[in-house]
Amino acid sequence: MQNPIYLDYNASTPVDPRVLQEMLPYLKEKFGNPSSSHPYGVALKAGIEQARERVAALLGCTASEIIFTSGATESNNMVIKGIAKAAGKGKHFITSQIEHPAVLEPCRNLERFGYSVTYLPVNKEGMVNPVDLENAITPNTALVTIMHSNNEVGTIQDIPALAKIASSRGVLFHTDAAQSVGKVRIQVEDLGVDFLTIAGHKFYAPKGIGALYIKHGRTLPPMMHGAGHERGLRPGTENAAFIAGLGAACVLASKIMDAEGPRQMKLGRRLFDGLRRAGLKVHLNGHSEKKLPNTWNISFEGFDSIAVMEALTNISVSPGAACHGNTVNASPVLVAMGADPALARGAIRFSLGRETTGAEIDIVIDKLKQNLR
Amino acid sequence: MQNPIYLDYNASTPVDPRVLQEMLPYLKEKFGNPSSSHPYGVALKAGIEQARERVAALLGCTASEIIFTSGATESNNMVIKGIAKAAGKGKHFITSQIEHPAVLEPCRNLERFGYSVTYLPVNKEGMVNPVDLENAITPNTALVTIMHSNNEVGTIQDIPALAKIASSRGVLFHTDAAQSVGKVRIQVEDLGVDFLTIAGHKFYAPKGIGALYIKHGRTLPPMMHGAGHERGLRPGTENAAFIAGLGAACVLASKIMDAEGPRQMKLGRRLFDGLRRAGLKVHLNGHSEKKLPNTWNISFEGFDSIAVMEALTNISVSPGAACHGNTVNASPVLVAMGADPALARGAIRFSLGRETTGAEIDIVIDKLKQNLR
Repeated sequence: MQNPIYLDYNASTPVDPRVLQEMLPYLKEKFGNPSSSHPYGVALKAGIEQARERVAALLGCTASEIIFTSGATESNNMVIKGIAKAAGKGKHFITSQIEHPAVLEPCRNLERFGYSVTYLPVNKEGMVNPVDLENAITPNTALVTIMHSNNEVGTIQDIPALAKIASSRGVLFHTDAAQSVGKVRIQVEDLGVDFLTIAGHKFYAPKGIGALYIKHGRTLPPMMHGAGHERGLRPGTENAAFIAGLGAACVLASKIMDAEGPRQMKLGRRLFDGLRRAGLKVHLNGHSEKKLPNTWNISFEGFDSIAVMEALTNISVSPGAACHGNTVNASPVLVAMGADPALARGAIRFSLGRETTGAEIDIVIDKLKQNLR
Repeated sequence: MQNPIYLDYNASTPVDPRVLQEMLPYLKEKFGNPSSSHPYGVALKAGIEQARERVAALLGCTASEIIFTSGATESNNMVIKGIAKAAGKGKHFITSQIEHPAVLEPCRNLERFGYSVTYLPVNKEGMVNPVDLENAITPNTALVTIMHSNNEVGTIQDIPALAKIASSRGVLFHTDAAQSVGKVRIQVEDLGVDFLTIAGHKFYAPKGIGALYIKHGRTLPPMMHGAGHERGLRPGTENAAFIAGLGAACVLASKIMDAEGPRQMKLGRRLFDGLRRAGLKVHLNGHSEKKLPNTWNISFEGFDSIAVMEALTNISVSPGAACHGNTVNASPVLVAMGADPALARGAIRFSLGRETTGAEIDIVIDKLKQNLR
């Protein structure tokens, strides 16, 4: 049997072979400890600093504003728990109802330890209303954390407007950009954020590496303690191989993003239009324009996710709803967006990538046309 | 110029080519997200669970007692901060004066937040006296954390005796075995510990992966929150490639340890005896028998570390003392061991590995014989 068609790039991307190429020396001859002062260490330190420059170049910041972590979950936890620790109990946090668990769960945990959290609603398209943020901020608010783009529906928030409100009220702003970095242009200065989270495996670097942008002048207490790596903010011997990979992925993304984005957007449009032309009653979840080009969350009227997944034989996608046995529960993201419950239960996330072809999209359309009756 | 001779395996080991071989599929065709239920995810999940079995086999525990982390620093922090959080402020911790910063620093941090910590002394050979532990435990003690072997001098503690004392007083016991696992046989049941830390890059797996043994029935609050990976204890998309590497490194270590240990011990002895025969006044730091076979911390009477390092042209080792400009400060480990200050300032750590040869050892001896005058 042929390999299934992969349309789940938002779950994880393959490592780009060009990225792997730049990692391999660090899994072979470049094996020292970056902290050692002899040549074996120096070679690694240099590689790490080059990668830091590369990540900074993609984000439009300086290298000293980047620290490496084990992934987006760690970056998010560092910011949320760090600010909580620095600000002290009783402080107030603001986030949205459609965040990834790596933001929602640290926030919920804060509530168990004497902090308060406001979960901002979103509209039908998954957008936070800046007025809601304005109204939610109190003199007690320590941090606003709102994702750059949503992992399920791809809606891109108006971060510049939101961050400006926070800044004007003297409140720190963090954005989890795990799904955005490498897919759409991100310049931290244009966004106006204080902290920004990056995940390697969402843009063709491996699973197990991430970064955190910390704007100059902002401080965070470390979540872990140890030897003084990453300016004492993130101790532990550096994952030099994956750091080099993350740097390479940033260079590559910057090079091909302007062609890949529109290409994937066109393929997604081809999918959606094709399904409609095939006579299926499909609904696009999320914002039709302010969206990640690769993320197409589609509801199939009259079918639940289980039925659609069964129709998609040999095609790997994510259900846009949680299936527990024979019950299908709508995704909390779609619920927060006020989606029609029946439609929400029939949602599928198609997320496209660099290797997605028009032929693959046409196979998906054909399959659903034939099997969904 | 030839590559320098590498005698700094305690700082970091190369990735064994056989380990890399088992990682590569996860950096190529096996690229899904382990949480996905489609074939791309399932393949990764299976790899992760196989690796967990392999780590457990090396330690003589069950797979469900192993969780994966980004390295030893994270594992140590999880235990120390986790127990602190669970036990509550005012509680008492016990450690030793010669721990790695990844244990010492989390402990020092606890002292800043209302906990008390006892730092047990060690004798001339770097051993903690069980009687000191017995006397230090109070009804308020929450955790004892004492390293299995010391990274600088290689002394192996009598963990079974120490853990037994803690257990008899109802106190949890953690050991940082970062330098021991893969070098000497470790069976967690024989040790009698509740938690044990593993570091991949100390035994031929890559930098950026580690594990934590958590004995059945023991609980820890997670340090991070997010999606429920690793039974909710360690969220974040799994580093499947390095996890597979860690598993492979465990299988390999188990296979060759019984030959490699004595071989490296013999090479170290050849180094020490050779230096002595060459007329150098050398002193072995640490325990002469209860030691890691690969770790040879040697002081050179009449010379400080800078002078010895300069004599070791094209040989990569770690100074056993910290050199800041022209001042040489004795290592806190050697100070705690009550080493003669002049000798402590002349310490060098030679740490041997799988690729170390007798010919390399002889070059080191010759070089020091000729250059140290």
